[in-house]
Amino acid sequence: AAVGGGEGGEALPTIFVVTPTYARPVQKAELVRLSQTLLHVPSLHWLVVEDSAAPTPLVGGLLASSGLSYTHLYAPTPPGKRNRALRWLRETRRPGESGVVYFADDDNTYSLRLFQEMRSTRGVSVWPVGLVGGLRFERPLVEGGRVVGFHTAWKPERPFPLDMAGFAVGLPLLLAHPGARFDPEAERGYLESSLLGGLVTPAQLEPKADNCTQVLVWHTRTEKPKLRQEEQLQREGRGSDPHIEV
Amino acid sequence: AAVGGGEGGEALPTIFVVTPTYARPVQKAELVRLSQTLLHVPSLHWLVVEDSAAPTPLVGGLLASSGLSYTHLYAPTPPGKRNRALRWLRETRRPGESGVVYFADDDNTYSLRLFQEMRSTRGVSVWPVGLVGGLRFERPLVEGGRVVGFHTAWKPERPFPLDMAGFAVGLPLLLAHPGARFDPEAERGYLESSLLGGLVTPAQLEPKADNCTQVLVWHTRTEKPKLRQEEQLQREGRGSDPHIEV
Repeated sequence: AAVGGGEGGEALPTIFVVTPTYARPVQKAELVRLSQTLLHVPSLHWLVVEDSAAPTPLVGGLLASSGLSYTHLYAPTPPGKRNRALRWLRETRRPGESGVVYFADDDNTYSLRLFQEMRSTRGVSVWPVGLVGGLRFERPLVEGGRVVGFHTAWKPERPFPLDMAGFAVGLPLLLAHPGARFDPEAERGYLESSLLGGLVTPAQLEPKADNCTQVLVWHTRTEKPKLRQEEQLQREGRGSDPHIEV
Repeated sequence: AAVGGGEGGEALPTIFVVTPTYARPVQKAELVRLSQTLLHVPSLHWLVVEDSAAPTPLVGGLLASSGLSYTHLYAPTPPGKRNRALRWLRETRRPGESGVVYFADDDNTYSLRLFQEMRSTRGVSVWPVGLVGGLRFERPLVEGGRVVGFHTAWKPERPFPLDMAGFAVGLPLLLAHPGARFDPEAERGYLESSLLGGLVTPAQLEPKADNCTQVLVWHTRTEKPKLRQEEQLQREGRGSDPHIEV
């Protein structure tokens, strides 16, 4: 059976949001912020994949209290967290089941409108990503409703010069290509291409967001907090209470 | 009349969230992320104060499409953006009107539970803040339901060693002290104390979040994106389309 319900009486294709995450001081903050965005989106299932040898109480507790439909996965070793999510989809979804798969890192910023746009994905849909690749934005260039090139400055020779946040994949297409996956040994910048090359050609990409003229997702990064005073207090035996989760 | 409605038929005190903001590449992303958190909170009014000589279309457009109850203010000069919001409250709210005022910078991370906690503020309520002051968290220390000290490492001699994100003020208290304001010339770290010193004594603070043992807000900071490739492309006349808002 499909995960999630519909709205207005009509069944919406479920959006499966795949979020890899790893332990660090800002981890909970990032996941809280993202969970609150996703909580606005109907018919969504969150696949959170931890970089750990077992599910952690921090992530487990957060998911349990999030109000979201979710699955908590973990993957301590290659082939990596996103491929772990692909395996879950292939093990639990039926061939032909409607749905959309989106890879959403825990530190980016997502407009709610983005999820409306990706909902109608049939094969692989694409849109601009803000503040990425050293540019104000990268985006597919569209003519006559077709992707004819890419506005990008970093390694433009890549088969699919797209950031992970810049595309979604139809679940039926993914399930129809059981060998398609991320190559954990791909050269830097080629991870997205390693998956997409097993699914479509660049000419088949489906432009969203007003022919790729709207920025609805931003490649934000959160500063690593400096915890010098914490280290000092801990040396003095007066550190912040370790029983209080941050 | 009070701004905002209630839930469950009962009138909730309105939470007035004061957010100062200034133009930078990540500004829209930050405001989008925060707006999506606030959109979950009932009976909330967002006071956004721009550091500009006039309201900008970017912030104005974002607010208009946010789905939130809001007021768009601007303050190009001292005494600053937060004092501009205090002036608006004093000019538009009636003495004794119920409400809560919270100063929420656009880059922090706020759990929805925080707003439930602050809703019952009578005078000045307080709680922990994560990842601030070089610590895992700063927090008021509570004994017998009263604040008796502060866990902090940075300038502990401050009258109120609290981050801006760590307290809320009851609207009636604020209106009853028309002279209370932020001192724009306060020494670094003393801005919060300059307002709070005009309203309460430390012993009067109201602990929230399970006697200040839950971290429900994090002092996150977003990295300034590097836009080197953008600068290079612009020199070549091939920069990202300036008509696309980021």
